[in-house]
Order: sequence, then C-alpha cells, then structure tokens
Amino acid sequence: MTGAPAARRTGASDVPGFEFSVHATAGAARAGTFTTPHGDVPTPAFMAVGTLATVKTLDPAELRAVGAAMILANTYHLHLRPGEDVVRALGGLHRFMQWDGPILTDSGGFQVFSLEGMRRVTEDGVEFRSHIDGSTRFFTPERVIEIQRDLGADVVMQLDHVIPGQAELSDARDASERSVRWLARCRSAWESHRASTASDATPQTLFPIVQGGIHPSLRREAAKAIQDMGSWTGYAVGGLSVGESKTDTYAILDVTNDALPRDRPRYLMGVGFPDDLVEGVRRGVDLFDCVAPTRMGRTGTAFTNDGRVNVRNARWRLDPRPLDPDCMCSTCRRFSRAYIRHLFAADEVLGLRLLSLHNVHFLVSLMGAAQLAIAEGAFDGWSREWLSRYHSGSTTKP
Amino acid sequence: MTGAPAARRTGASDVPGFEFSVHATAGAARAGTFTTPHGDVPTPAFMAVGTLATVKTLDPAELRAVGAAMILANTYHLHLRPGEDVVRALGGLHRFMQWDGPILTDSGGFQVFSLEGMRRVTEDGVEFRSHIDGSTRFFTPERVIEIQRDLGADVVMQLDHVIPGQAELSDARDASERSVRWLARCRSAWESHRASTASDATPQTLFPIVQGGIHPSLRREAAKAIQDMGSWTGYAVGGLSVGESKTDTYAILDVTNDALPRDRPRYLMGVGFPDDLVEGVRRGVDLFDCVAPTRMGRTGTAFTNDGRVNVRNARWRLDPRPLDPDCMCSTCRRFSRAYIRHLFAADEVLGLRLLSLHNVHFLVSLMGAAQLAIAEGAFDGWSREWLSRYHSGSTTKP
Repeated sequence: MTGAPAARRTGASDVPGFEFSVHATAGAARAGTFTTPHGDVPTPAFMAVGTLATVKTLDPAELRAVGAAMILANTYHLHLRPGEDVVRALGGLHRFMQWDGPILTDSGGFQVFSLEGMRRVTEDGVEFRSHIDGSTRFFTPERVIEIQRDLGADVVMQLDHVIPGQAELSDARDASERSVRWLARCRSAWESHRASTASDATPQTLFPIVQGGIHPSLRREAAKAIQDMGSWTGYAVGGLSVGESKTDTYAILDVTNDALPRDRPRYLMGVGFPDDLVEGVRRGVDLFDCVAPTRMGRTGTAFTNDGRVNVRNARWRLDPRPLDPDCMCSTCRRFSRAYIRHLFAADEVLGLRLLSLHNVHFLVSLMGAAQLAIAEGAFDGWSREWLSRYHSGSTTKP
Repeated sequence: MTGAPAARRTGASDVPGFEFSVHATAGAARAGTFTTPHGDVPTPAFMAVGTLATVKTLDPAELRAVGAAMILANTYHLHLRPGEDVVRALGGLHRFMQWDGPILTDSGGFQVFSLEGMRRVTEDGVEFRSHIDGSTRFFTPERVIEIQRDLGADVVMQLDHVIPGQAELSDARDASERSVRWLARCRSAWESHRASTASDATPQTLFPIVQGGIHPSLRREAAKAIQDMGSWTGYAVGGLSVGESKTDTYAILDVTNDALPRDRPRYLMGVGFPDDLVEGVRRGVDLFDCVAPTRMGRTGTAFTNDGRVNVRNARWRLDPRPLDPDCMCSTCRRFSRAYIRHLFAADEVLGLRLLSLHNVHFLVSLMGAAQLAIAEGAFDGWSREWLSRYHSGSTTKP
C-alpha cells in the first residue's frame, strides 16, 4: 500500500460477529472489510442478486469462482415461494441454496411498493396481493423481521416505504417519515428476537434504510433520525435509481456520504450498472446490489470495459474474439463471440449462463480494481479514466 | 480384474488414430476402450447429446467433471444454425464448443426423416424444409459427408433412410437397401476427402448404420452388405426406439450382436433410458446416445437407481434428501429435493442445470458400473439385480 492515507478505522458493531474496517481512503471512497458471521467481504463490493434463493442461471460454486463474497435474496419472493417455513425447515438460506458466504435479504418493501394498484399502505403496514396467485398478504415491520429471521440471512433489512424517484416533497416526506417509524418497530421486533434466541445461534444484524427521494433535506433528516435511534451495523440508502436523473442520484449520494457515520458500511440498494458503481464508490458507498448483470446477461447484453456489447448482433457471426479481451472470466477465457451469439440465436441455456457469469464477474472485479486503486492511492485518476473509457465505448460502439 | 475371460482383442482400425480394444467380456457384453484422435473412451459408454454444439444447459467443464468421455452433435441442426461454414471458420466443433474430447456427429438422417410432410426422398437424396425458416434444402450422401467434414467431429455418420419402428417388410427393405447404397456413396465421398486432406490433419472416421426395422432378415442382410463393402472403424445400429416394442428392440440387438464383427465398437443410436442401456450392454452394444437425460432433466424427471423421480411433486416440499442417496454427482452431494422442487416451481434455470447434470452423470456412471462388473466377471448378476431394482422402483413409486 502506497500513497493513500491509510486511516484505519474499525467500527466494532454492537452485534457480535459483525465489524467494519476501513483500510484506506481516497476522498470519500474507502477500501475496507465488512466482517460477518459467514465471512469477510472486501469493500467496495458488488452483491449478486439471488431473488428466489438462486442467482439466476448460476451455480453457487460459479459465484465463488468469480470472487463474489456476499449475495442477496428477497423476502417478498421467498415468502411467496417456497415460503419461509420451507427455508427454515431446510436449515435456512445458506444451507438451502448452498451458499456458505454472507447473505443479505431485502425486506420486500421495494417489491411490494412496485405492485401498482395491488397494494394499500396504512400506518400499520402494507397490504398487497401476491403476483403469483392474487392472494392478499399483509407485511408489517414486525412481520418482515420475523420472515427474515426464518430465512436466516446475515443482514436483514427494515420494511421501508418506497416511492417513485420524482415524488414531490410532501409525498417523499410522508414516506420517509413512515420509514423511520417502521424502522423503530423493526428494531424492537429484531431486539426481542435477539433476546429470545439461543446465545450460540448465528447472529443476524439489521440495516436501516435512509429514504427521502431526491430531496437533500429529507435525506439529512432521515439519516439523523436513524442515528438518533441508536447505533447500527451498517446503513442502506434506498429509493435511488427509481426514475430520477443520474445527476439527482449522485447529488443525493453526496448528501448521504456527509450525513452517515464514516465507520460503518454504506449500502446503496438496487444500483448496479458499471458506471453507477464507480460513481457510487467516489461518493463513499461500500456495498451495491442489482439484478442488472444477470437480467442483461439473459437478454444478451455483456458489460465490457469499452461499454456494452449486444451478443445477438449479426456482426459477431464469425468473430473469434472473446466478449472482452481484458476479461479473465471463464466465459472470456474459453468462448468466442461467434459461439455465444450462436447460443443466443438458438435459445440455448448455456448462452444465458455464460453471459450472466461474465457480467457478475465483471462487476465483482470492477469493485476489486477499485479496492486496489484506493489502497494504492490512485483511485481518483483510475476512476476518471475508467469512466471516460467506458462511456466513450458505450456511445461510439453499436 | 478377476473372473472374466479377459480375451483382449484389439481391432486396429484402417483409419489412423482410431482403435478398439476389448479388455473383458461377459456373454455378449464387453468392456473395452475406443481410442480416437481426441482421447480414449472406456466402453460401454453413454454419449451426451449436444445437438446445437451444446449439451443443453451444461458447460463442457461439467461434462468432464461427471466423467463424460465422448459427446454428440447434430449435422442437420448445425447446418441450419449457425451453418457449417461458421463452425469451420471458428476452428471446428471442438474449439467452437470448447470440448476437447471425442465428438461424433449424427448425419441428420433421423432429423430429416422426422420432418413428416416436409421432405421428399429420391435415390439421389432427400429434399426437406428447414424447421427454422421453411427454406428448401437437399441432403445427399456426399453433402452430409462434406458438412460433417467442415464440422470436424472425430466420427461422422452416413446418411441413412430412417423409417417408423413398425414399418412393413417392403418399406423397411426399401429404406434399408437405400441406406446401403447411400453408404457406398458416403464412403466414396469420405475417401476422396481423405485423399485430398493434408497428412497432418486430424483424422476423421465414418461409421455405417445398420437399418432394417424390426425384421431380422433385413438386419442380417444389411450387416452383411456393409461388411462386404470393406472394413469399418465401428458400426452403428439405427432405427430402434422409434415406436417398436421393447421386445422387438432387444430381439434386433441379439441379431445385430451376431451379425456384426466382435472386434469393432457397436453404437446403438438414440437409445438412452437407463434400462435400455443395461439391456443393450447385455446384447453387445458399446456406445449409446440419447437426449433423454437432458430432456427429462429440463422437464423435471430424475433418473435414480430406484426408478424415476418427478421433482415437481409436492411431496418433496420439505424433503431434505438428495435425489438419489447413492449418487455422488455435484447435485446430489449438495442440494435437497426440496430446493430442486422449489427451483422448478419458480422456473429457475439452475433447476434445469442441476437435474440435467444429475441425469447425465447417472447414465455415465451406470456405464462405469457396467464396465467394472464386466471386468470383474460379475456382469450377469449385477445387470439382473440392477434391472430388477430399477423396475420395481419405477413401478411402485409415484
């Protein structure tokens, strides 16, 4: 490590088994380690999303092989299928899906609030209809903690009230303040669960979510209210990348960077395009998640250092080159663009796999490169250069 | 190796790089090695089918890991997509699909003759319409050799005239005799290709196909006519498992076992349910292929030593057991029936993968167990016991 002011700050969490250490910083960017009962996560880190207890098309062994340290699963989806009782009976998420690294479960707030016209919010919670069978369900702050307890992830999330990115101040304030009140109830539920749990059980921690739309004042107020409630293992920033402009997203990240404590990890929810990751790291974000790499992988788009590549394009018909000549993933080390294009043209599952694997690898190693650049005191230049190369590739290449 | 009369017979092939050695026999069953320019295949062996240059849902590294030695690809399908020119330009099938073991390409006869109402047979060849875009194509014996030359498999197959299993004697005779005439033309085309190929090119060999439906006399005549044409690296038996009864299938295998030379491998085309494999080995078959393990894997059926298991069944909802407690595949070593059922219920691709992998592993190791039993002089008892356990499981379990 050279250059960077290696201001090591360790945030020992109140919850045993969790810890966050910052090894080096570069402006707001930090390189650190988020320790959990299921292992360490070098940060900044991208977490692949395993909505239904599977990162779509991939085997957990492949996630390990690309260097993924921590993954996500989803409370809303797992509650509906197979049901938290099944996951619990099978020994919890880690054993069920055979992922022995750290897992975070999203609370389902985002999914429930995306069910336009199928949900009703009260102060008590949110009533919604299952997208599977139309049955009526009711999520309260207490209920989502209970479900997540059964699922058994390392990090669980509060129930939050998510609103569209361009919501007006009054709506945004209403939702943000409700999220804070729901957080207090989540914390009580989580604390009584903790108190009633055997002392040798694997500990689970709860992350609060800062809401407030694109309104800096609301974000600052939420961050303060959350910290006034007590200390937390980590902090999430929610309600971004939901329709607002990128300028607004980045401006809010500057606000939350100032408003949240520096000795705890910050998790930016649901944001995961390559350039957003680098911009987020520049603004003090440590953890990211997004379905983009697997969703785009399934529809035929590859992330590369020179922008996106549509693998269905006929121009790759005879192209012997890998998707990205700089990439060391097992897709790029072995297969040509011509072969991957053929797999997509023929609707072969292996195509979805190879591209999803490449895209997850791409984001995981992008964050690895950011860690290194921060540790070496070279992050500012590295990130500017990378963004410039990525954007010029994206705009000039078909 | 104990017990078995280890009558080692080596059939040195006329084509350099190919050889077949029989290490042990048990009645008609043989344990041997089929040597090819891309490696050895311990026999009896099951070959997984990679119709479009991919064994559906699986990565070639996974095929290696389950012990698959040799795989198939399909001339008809690859001619239509991506086209043999593409495969050739990308360095041939082995490099294109990243499988460095032996490959066999089926001629496309079976596929073309399955296009009911979309094909027309003449002595010259068969005209058919592409199932992709309806375009008219014409396969002649010479053309399929040329296409297979471009694809670059180790073993290529003759164009044959395939008829339904219950075809009457006159139709069966007509098709069988045409197949023999087409074989002569395939051989000429293949020989001129050989003569014009650089001496350091990887050699490719041609297998004839014995046709004749369920009529022993026709099968014997075809086997004789084929051998009268010269010597061959190996012999295929086609046109079985196409609608005839299992009794008829097995009776014909007894006929071809007697009618074909013992020092060359016999390949039973398109037959691959577990019991058919064991019955085939008992009748002197060395090589098998079938889409069954991957097709059934994608629709939710697992082969086990106790018969088939439908993984979608609600009774597995909370079942922590693997698909088959005796199975050492990476699916059974890690995942519960409950998890696999969940993946199928949620339409997750990983379910298709895990089940396809298990089923291919199952057939590959079933043939491994047969090799061992033959070598140890225990095949007759082993095969009877295995068939009895498999059938009682299949019929008594839901």
